[in-house]
Order: sequence, then C-alpha cells, then structure tokens
Amino acid sequence: MASKVERRFVPVPLNKVSLRDGFWARRVEVNRTVTLPVQYEQCVATGRIAAWRFEWKPGMPNEPHIFWDSDVAKWLEAAAYSLAAHPDARLRTQAEGLVDLIVKAQQPDGYLNTHFTVVEPAKRWTNLRDCHELYCAGHLTEAAVAWHRATGDRRLLNALRRYADHIGSVFGPEEGKKRGYPGHEELELALVKLYRATGEAKYLRLSKYFVDERGRRPHYFDLEAQARGEAPSRHWAGGYDYCQAHLPVREQTTAEGHAVRAMYLYSAMTDLAAETGDATLWTACKRLWRNVTEERMYVTGAVGSAAQGERFTCDYDLPNEAAYAETCAAIGLVFWAHRMLQVERDGRYADVMERALYNAVLSGVSLDGTRFFYANPLALYPPALRFSPGVLSATRQEWYGCACCPPNIARLIASLREYMYSQGRDEVCVHLYAQGSAELEVTGRRLALAQETNYPWDGAVRLTLGLEEPARFALALRVPGWCRKARLKVNGRAAPLGRAAAKGYARVRRLWQDGDCVELELPMPVERITAHPKVRSDAGRVALQRGPIVYCLEEADNGPDLNDISLPRNAALRARYEQDTLGGVVAVTGHGRRSNLTAWRGSLYRPARTATKPVTIRAVPYCTWANRKPGEMLVWIREA
Amino acid sequence: MASKVERRFVPVPLNKVSLRDGFWARRVEVNRTVTLPVQYEQCVATGRIAAWRFEWKPGMPNEPHIFWDSDVAKWLEAAAYSLAAHPDARLRTQAEGLVDLIVKAQQPDGYLNTHFTVVEPAKRWTNLRDCHELYCAGHLTEAAVAWHRATGDRRLLNALRRYADHIGSVFGPEEGKKRGYPGHEELELALVKLYRATGEAKYLRLSKYFVDERGRRPHYFDLEAQARGEAPSRHWAGGYDYCQAHLPVREQTTAEGHAVRAMYLYSAMTDLAAETGDATLWTACKRLWRNVTEERMYVTGAVGSAAQGERFTCDYDLPNEAAYAETCAAIGLVFWAHRMLQVERDGRYADVMERALYNAVLSGVSLDGTRFFYANPLALYPPALRFSPGVLSATRQEWYGCACCPPNIARLIASLREYMYSQGRDEVCVHLYAQGSAELEVTGRRLALAQETNYPWDGAVRLTLGLEEPARFALALRVPGWCRKARLKVNGRAAPLGRAAAKGYARVRRLWQDGDCVELELPMPVERITAHPKVRSDAGRVALQRGPIVYCLEEADNGPDLNDISLPRNAALRARYEQDTLGGVVAVTGHGRRSNLTAWRGSLYRPARTATKPVTIRAVPYCTWANRKPGEMLVWIREA
Repeated sequence: MASKVERRFVPVPLNKVSLRDGFWARRVEVNRTVTLPVQYEQCVATGRIAAWRFEWKPGMPNEPHIFWDSDVAKWLEAAAYSLAAHPDARLRTQAEGLVDLIVKAQQPDGYLNTHFTVVEPAKRWTNLRDCHELYCAGHLTEAAVAWHRATGDRRLLNALRRYADHIGSVFGPEEGKKRGYPGHEELELALVKLYRATGEAKYLRLSKYFVDERGRRPHYFDLEAQARGEAPSRHWAGGYDYCQAHLPVREQTTAEGHAVRAMYLYSAMTDLAAETGDATLWTACKRLWRNVTEERMYVTGAVGSAAQGERFTCDYDLPNEAAYAETCAAIGLVFWAHRMLQVERDGRYADVMERALYNAVLSGVSLDGTRFFYANPLALYPPALRFSPGVLSATRQEWYGCACCPPNIARLIASLREYMYSQGRDEVCVHLYAQGSAELEVTGRRLALAQETNYPWDGAVRLTLGLEEPARFALALRVPGWCRKARLKVNGRAAPLGRAAAKGYARVRRLWQDGDCVELELPMPVERITAHPKVRSDAGRVALQRGPIVYCLEEADNGPDLNDISLPRNAALRARYEQDTLGGVVAVTGHGRRSNLTAWRGSLYRPARTATKPVTIRAVPYCTWANRKPGEMLVWIREA
Repeated sequence: MASKVERRFVPVPLNKVSLRDGFWARRVEVNRTVTLPVQYEQCVATGRIAAWRFEWKPGMPNEPHIFWDSDVAKWLEAAAYSLAAHPDARLRTQAEGLVDLIVKAQQPDGYLNTHFTVVEPAKRWTNLRDCHELYCAGHLTEAAVAWHRATGDRRLLNALRRYADHIGSVFGPEEGKKRGYPGHEELELALVKLYRATGEAKYLRLSKYFVDERGRRPHYFDLEAQARGEAPSRHWAGGYDYCQAHLPVREQTTAEGHAVRAMYLYSAMTDLAAETGDATLWTACKRLWRNVTEERMYVTGAVGSAAQGERFTCDYDLPNEAAYAETCAAIGLVFWAHRMLQVERDGRYADVMERALYNAVLSGVSLDGTRFFYANPLALYPPALRFSPGVLSATRQEWYGCACCPPNIARLIASLREYMYSQGRDEVCVHLYAQGSAELEVTGRRLALAQETNYPWDGAVRLTLGLEEPARFALALRVPGWCRKARLKVNGRAAPLGRAAAKGYARVRRLWQDGDCVELELPMPVERITAHPKVRSDAGRVALQRGPIVYCLEEADNGPDLNDISLPRNAALRARYEQDTLGGVVAVTGHGRRSNLTAWRGSLYRPARTATKPVTIRAVPYCTWANRKPGEMLVWIREA
C-alpha cells in the first residue's frame, strides 16, 4: 500500500467540521473571543500593525523588526480560520483593515516586507541566513491562502502571488538568479499551500528548489556572508546545522538545530514528497521522523531541548527543568505529523500529533486565553529561576518581544477542526476524537458523520453515519497507541479489531447505510509511563498519563519540594472528573511518600536512612499547569 | 570556652611540617616538579610575566588584562611555599626574577599594577566594582608575605607595604579619601597577613575599613558609576549581591553572589573577628558558615552552583550536571574553614575543610599536574556539552584565559602542610591525617610529633611524641564527622572518647613523656550518603563515600548511560586498594542494576515495566576523575 508516495488523503476542511465538546470547543471559543482580540491589541500597541503604513522614520519608536510581519501574518491567518467557522464582525473588521494595509504596502515590483522597506531598504535579500525575509513571506502567504479560503476575497492572495513571483525572479537555479534559500524555513510549506490554492505549478517548483538547494556546496550562506564582507565561519549560531543547512536535506538523518525551523522544513519536505512522489524525500522524512519521535521528543510532544539556539541537541537529551520545548516547535510537530498522516495513514503520526496537541501545544496558552508560554519545561523550581539564563518563567506572559508563539497557537486552535478527519478516494479517517460532526463527500455520496464522546476524559466514542443513499467505503478509526484494550462495535455488534487495527487504525470497509453506528471503546486507565533508559533525566521516574493527557504535580496541590515525592511502584491511582478544577478536568490522585524533614535539621548530607511518610499526591493535566498560584511543577515523578 | 572571640590557635608553619605519605606527598611533589614549571611557562607564553616590564604598547599582542597580576602573584606565592619546604634552584631563579620585575615596576607613589599602568593609566581607581585593581593588590601582598617568610628577602614585602600605604592614602573613612572597597574581595585577607607579617596595625585597620564599609549607603559603587557617567542600576551582574555588597556584612545572613569573592570575604571577616575580638563579625561568620555548609554546599565541598555569575543561588539548589563548582571557590572554602578553626576548634570546620580538600579542590588538577578544571560538575554527559553554554568540559585544560584556578590550586597544594596542625597556648591540634611529622614548641617545650598512617585509604593513625622533657598540654585529635565508631588508645590502653570527643576532637590532656604514643582508629566502611530532601537534584540518589573520599562512577569503568545504573538499597559494597588504578586508589565495587536496552527498540516512552539486569559497578575517587579516556561521570547514583 505504501509503495507509492502520494498525497493519499486530504483533510476534511475546517468549515465542514463542527466541535461541540467540552474540551476543544471551549478553547476555540476563548481563542476567538479573548486570544485573537488581545493579540490584535498587542500588535497595535507594539506598532506591528502600523508598520505596514510605512510611516516609520529613523529615531521613531517601534522600529519594524525583521520578524514582525510574521507575527501579524499569523494573527491574520488565525483570524481567517476563525471567521471561516464563526462570523465575528469585529474580528472581520480588524482583519479586513489589516488586509487593506498589507495589500497597499506592496511595492511596484511585488516586494512586501516592512523592515526592509523602511528600516534597511539597501539590505534587501542580502542576508537570508539571519534576516527572516523569506520566512515573513511564507507567513504572509499562509495568511493569504487562509484569508481567501475563509472569505473568497482574492486581493491578498493576488498580492502574495505577485510577491512569490518576485521571489521566483530573484531566487532559483536559473542563470542570473541568486541560489539562496530561507535561513528560517517557512516559505517552502507556504508555497505548497499557494500552489494548492492557485493550481500554479511554478509555486511548487519554487518550493522544491528551496528545499533541494538547502545545504548544497558551495554554500549560499558562505557566499552571501562574503558578499557582505563577513567571514562565513563566524556564524553566530556556531554552524549551519542551526538552520538545517549543514547537508542537503536528503542526506540529513538526525533532527538538528533550531527546532521550529526543523519542523517547518520537514513539513515542507513531506508536502513536496506527497505532491511530487519523490521517494528519496519521503525516505528522508521518515528517517527524520523516527529520530525526532523515538529519540528527541518529550513525553508532552515538545521538541527542542536547549534554550541556547532553541534547538535539538543529541539523542535522549531531554532535561526537564531546563527544557526549552518552545510552543512553536510543538505546533510545528503537529503540522508535520498531520502532513505525514496524509501520505501514510499510520497511527504513529496521529499519536504524536495528539500527544503534542493535548500537552505541549496547549500548555502554551492560559485557560483564559490571555497569556502565553514560550518555553514549556517539564519541571519548574521557581526559587532557582533568577539564576538561570533564558526565557523560563513560572507564569505565562502577555506578549513577547519575539512573539512567534502567541499567534502561532492562535492559528492552530482556530484551525483545529481541520486536524480531525481526512478522506481518501474511498476512505474516511477519524484521527482525533471530540464531540461534533463532519460533512463530506465520499465516493460521490454526501456523508454526515456525528461523533458523540466525552473524550479526552472518557474513551467511549460513538460515530453515527448520515447518508442520503448507501455508500461503500472504508471508515478508518484511529486506535490510539496509548490504548491497549480497544473494542469496536458496528451497529451494536462486536467487530474484531485484529488485523483491521494495523498501523493504528481500525478500518471497517462495508456498504454503509444511513444511521449506521460505530462504537469505539478506548479504556483509559491511568498509566505510569517510563522513558527509554538512555533518557538520563527521567531515569527512575514515571510520568502519569491517562488517554492522551500527560499529568503533572503542581505545588498548588502538593506543596513545595515536589522532587521529594516518590510514588511506590504499586500505589493505586484514582482518576476523577472535577468540574471545578481548572475549568473541569480529570484529576489523578494516589498515595505517595515524602521524607520526614524534621529528622534533617542542621545536616545537608548524612548516611542513607529511609524515613518517609505517606502523602496523598494529586496530579492535574500538564496542559493546565500554571493557571493557579505560581509554584513548582513536575511531570516525571520519582518511583520508589 | 568560646565566649571570647580570639585567635585561639595558630597553624604550625609549613616549614615545620613534613609529609611522607602516599597521597599528599606525591601531589606536593608533582606540584613542585610539574605544575609550577608548566604554569610559569604559561605565564611567560601569555605575556603575564613580560607585562611587568611595562613594554606593552597599544596594538601589541598580550595586552595586560586587569586580573593578570593576580595570576602571577598566586604563582609566586605557590613558588614561595614550595621553596620554604624544598629547595629547587630553577624555581628559585624564576621566582627571584619575577620578584625583581615586580619590585622594579613599582611607581614612585607606590602604585603597582600592570594593566592600569600601561593600558588604562587614566582609569586608575575609577572602577573598583569591576576592575580587580584592589584584588590584584591583595594577591601581590599574599605573595610578598609568603616570599618573605620563605626566603627572608624583604624587597617584595617592602614594596607591598608601600603599595598598601598608597592604597591607605587613597581609601578610607577619613575626610578627603575615597570610601571605596574591593569589587572582588581579596585584599582584606591579604592586609591581615601583612599586619601579621609586619606588626603594623594600620594594615589591620585598613582591612577592617574595607570590610566595614562594604554594602553601606550611599553605595560607593553607585557613586563611582555616576562619576564614570554610567547608570548605577545597569550593573551587568544584576545587583550588588554578586559581590556581597548588597548589605553591610554584619547584616548578611545568606551566602550570595560570586562564590570565590564570598569565600575570600568571609575569610577576611573571620580573620578580623579573630584579631579584633569583634563578636558581631564572628556571629555573621557563623551564620554564613551555617548557610553555606548546611544549605549550599555540594557533597564534594564545592560551592557556587551557577555558571552565570559563578555564584551561589538559593538554598538546596545544587544541580549536578550544570554545577559550576569552581575550583577557586572550593579553595576559598578551605581558606575560610581553616580560619574558623583557629578561632573555634570545632570539627565542623575541619570536616568541611577536609571534604573540600580531598574532593572539590583536588578534582581541579590532573594526576600528572599539567591540566586543570575550572568547573567541577558532579555529573557529566559529554554528548550534551556542545549544547550547553559555559566552561563545562570533559577534560581538564592546560590553561584558561581567566586563569585564576591553576595557580590557586598550586598555592594550596604547596602550602597544604600548614593546614594539618594548629597549636594554642597549651594545646596541640591535629586537623588532618597524613604520614609525616611536625615540630613545634608547646608550653616552652620542643615537641616532635610523628604521624604514621595510610590515611585516607585506611583509618589507623599512630602519633608518637618526641619530647626532650615531659610537658603538660592537651593533644586534640580530630575525630572526623564521617566516622561514627572511632577508638582511641593512649600508650596502648583504650581511652574513652566520650566527652573528650566533644566538637569533633578527642582531647587528651596529660603530662606527656618522650615516646608516648596515641593511636586513633577511624573505621572507614563505604557509606551511602543521602542529601537533604530539599536538594531536588539528589532525590532518590546516594553518593558513595569512604573516609573523606567521595566516589564517582566513570564511563571508563561502567560504560555509558550512568544514570541508568541503580544501586539496590542493600547491595554490598567492597573497597579495595588498587596499586595500578589512577596512581593507587581504593576503588569501590558492588552489584547494581541496569535496564535491558534491547527491550526498548523503537520506543521512547512506554508503560512502566521493570526489566533490569545485574551489573557490577565500580566507583573511583571523585578527585581522580577525568584522568582516563573522557566519558560520562556521575557522583549521585540512583538508589533502587
């Protein structure tokens, strides 16, 4: 089946999917009513919107920064997704005003960038390595495609086509063009979107050129640095692996460098493999996927351990307190997983997508939608924060100077519905579970799929098919990797999961009738998860997971000194839904042990004795941490 | 007894103590024959010696750095200690040549500093906070005192007296003087040495002024910054606690900031309390001592956890892999402990002094004496080093741009003999055990004390007293805090340790005869040490210690992935002296467990199962780590 590389599935578009669940629907609503408005205000207050008027002059405040365009573009993309599903007059007005500004800002030659128009006009296209020029173009392109899809308004799409054409006239393999490519990947995947939106193959070719050129010798970033009069070897990031340009992409076998850039590149590589059938590219994607998900990913689905360089480090190097785990990188992993899944319906991709979504991504935004984490550590000890460099913080912040994460999470939540279902020629896939419905057409028949479930708090899922006339197709229901005792019923009768559940999906192919009903039972005991023994930070520790939800201990529930808590190997763990906790979550409680501190007065080290006392421990979903009084947090609990 | 604060004891001088043991004597010899020569060559090669000729001109290489004088001074001090005990023609020639250069370099007004004479002459005394000017003066003063003691040559001592007089004419509480004090403490303790060497009370007063003035308002560093036209609030280190100037010293209750500075300040405070009887200062010393040793010290005796700021952080914050644990800070702790011990003969001070000496200090130099560690982490994972900022390294280096540690360890080892014995009016104290002898006078009688032992590998110690005529005095033998079953014999007969061993010393007062013999038996089982439960990095872990020696696992003995190793709670541990290991050490072996890696293929996280297999573990003294093939190292072993 997987012999030919192709885009076997396409996502059911977000305007065809509804969410009426207790988990995501609320997040989407908060995103629309709180997050998007406060982010717009931040963009206004910091000058990011006004930058498009080109009224900035040297000496004035709010100098347009090289990556500001991307922040605004991501916000606009998020607004477009939101508007596609939910009319909102104020949001529409703000978004349209922004579209007007951007369209008007386009230069006669198609160029479209605030910083390099008003701040450093002479430096246009002189430093692709560091200056985010093509990256911003990518985000504007994604916004344009989303805006067009949401509203039918072609103005921004046309502007971005002109900009892409301009870029294609400057860069490429042809004689007389610069053989450059983005220092921060992003435009590559955006050009595939532009190709899909317009049908213009030149955009696919330009994307393919950028991906193929990456890491080739002579190295463009060397030539470019020389042209600027700089020594190429004095790259501030220490090497081209920082931006995945150390080798041609097909020769890359491990995930290196800046994690967000890596995720965007791998997403584009997957897109290109799917569109072009390029087996060598697909092989590289699978190899990189294995490295990321089997050797370099946190249990929350976060990636990129190191703050310095916001980067991947080495295999199994996953420090918890010092974890960088940038929100954007987890979002990028969702993008990539989703793309892999459209080529190969394999539960491994959906499992990772789900893991990142429910944990590392959602941790990035507060429950009230007003504050954001940039770094998402897996343990926090606030008293030591003052002494560690970097962006770690005990509380989410309202905004960041480098504000990539807030609008990124906004656009992902606004488009979440698009990640739930895919369809192939005669197959419908359900990747994620959440109460709601989807409308699609399969083998020429209209299908209304109603999903009833209380997922992720409960694993019972009931899908009812609405069909005007019977249709023969396969329904592929994801059986999550965390679930080892799934049960399936079709119209009330048990169906064997056996071979059907190959590659993580229970695939039922039959002539479906209106009102047919499929029930999936996914038992969700609280699991103690251990990490690979080479993950030195997690040795002797367990993480609690129930369904897709990874748990953590917080000081608010357990007092300080969380690392002193140990969990006996056989301690029972109880899960209970609590309406009043953190907006309604399943909390996990159990019996752990703690040292008797009074025995320690006046000594720092002493011969080992075991004096512990029983305590009740209480764990809450990691994605909801830091929504109460700031304090310690811990995912990996010592096992006694 | 301890009601009056005074200098109750004085160390038996190093030229009166001999070492003929298998542990320190070799280190001292390597220090003399290898370390001091290679360090001299480094000082020559880097221009540190030539700097004193004042021939440097702008544009030339080897611009004299603000702290170079201190490196050279520490080397000279080390050479002086070495020469005091062991003639060495080449070393003497080198040292005398250096003394000549320094003496000739003195300015007419007494000023003596290379950087501020040839590089920034206009900036003399304009930035005490950052520029190490008084710090360098302190190290030159220590060198001068040591050189005079070792050789009788007064030229350098006189030069430094003139420099101290000049400094005293510039700084002080008197009208018209600057109310400054050192940004990096050191001169304070050096002035006490100068006072003791010359009997001139003005040097003691100047030291006391510097200590008393520290942290007072209006803050001198503020005024000084304003005078330079800088905003005082924009201190690069983030606050005056970095240099212990956040509060007047008597109000300081926790060890803050740069650890080496803190140790030198506390040493000076202790000296001043001892010399002046200042009870408030002594109270501050004891309070800070408690904070450092009961809340902020590694099991190796290292202090200062954080690389950023080379500083103390917060209580119980002792990360192992990220430990800064600067060699100089452990040396400073030895200085301080030794001074506390002369005021109050309390085993707590000697225990810490011994802990630091045998572990954190000695770790700073390779067995062959040619290479040095700046940071001394308690765990090392080499593959991740590339991605962490800072000075962590898997191998000792030959030198450092900021080369404070190498000559510091050289001067400590060269003067080690001075840390072994103290004497009071009618009391002789033995603080450290090592085969050798001491000569002293007590109650007017000459005493030759012969020590036979194989310490630290064996805890049997035999002291024989040589007396021309009987003498009544107390012999106070330290009973180390790590030893819980010490036995004492006097002339072959068991003596009760009971009350005699109060405060960590077995004190035997009697009329001693020539040939009297005291035997101390200090059983040394391998102990599993646990850390206070609030030390989150060590939770669930044990360190192995035998006698004063802290052990570590190295990859060379145990393979990689040391954190995967666990030590069952009741596993037997065997200690055996191995002549051919690391120059001859007691190694510790036992049965541990390791995960079965083959069971993990292809997964990074999975439900907890316990699949471990038995392995033999082998631990070597921490102070000898990184003397074989570079690899992982681990002090705190997981307990299963």
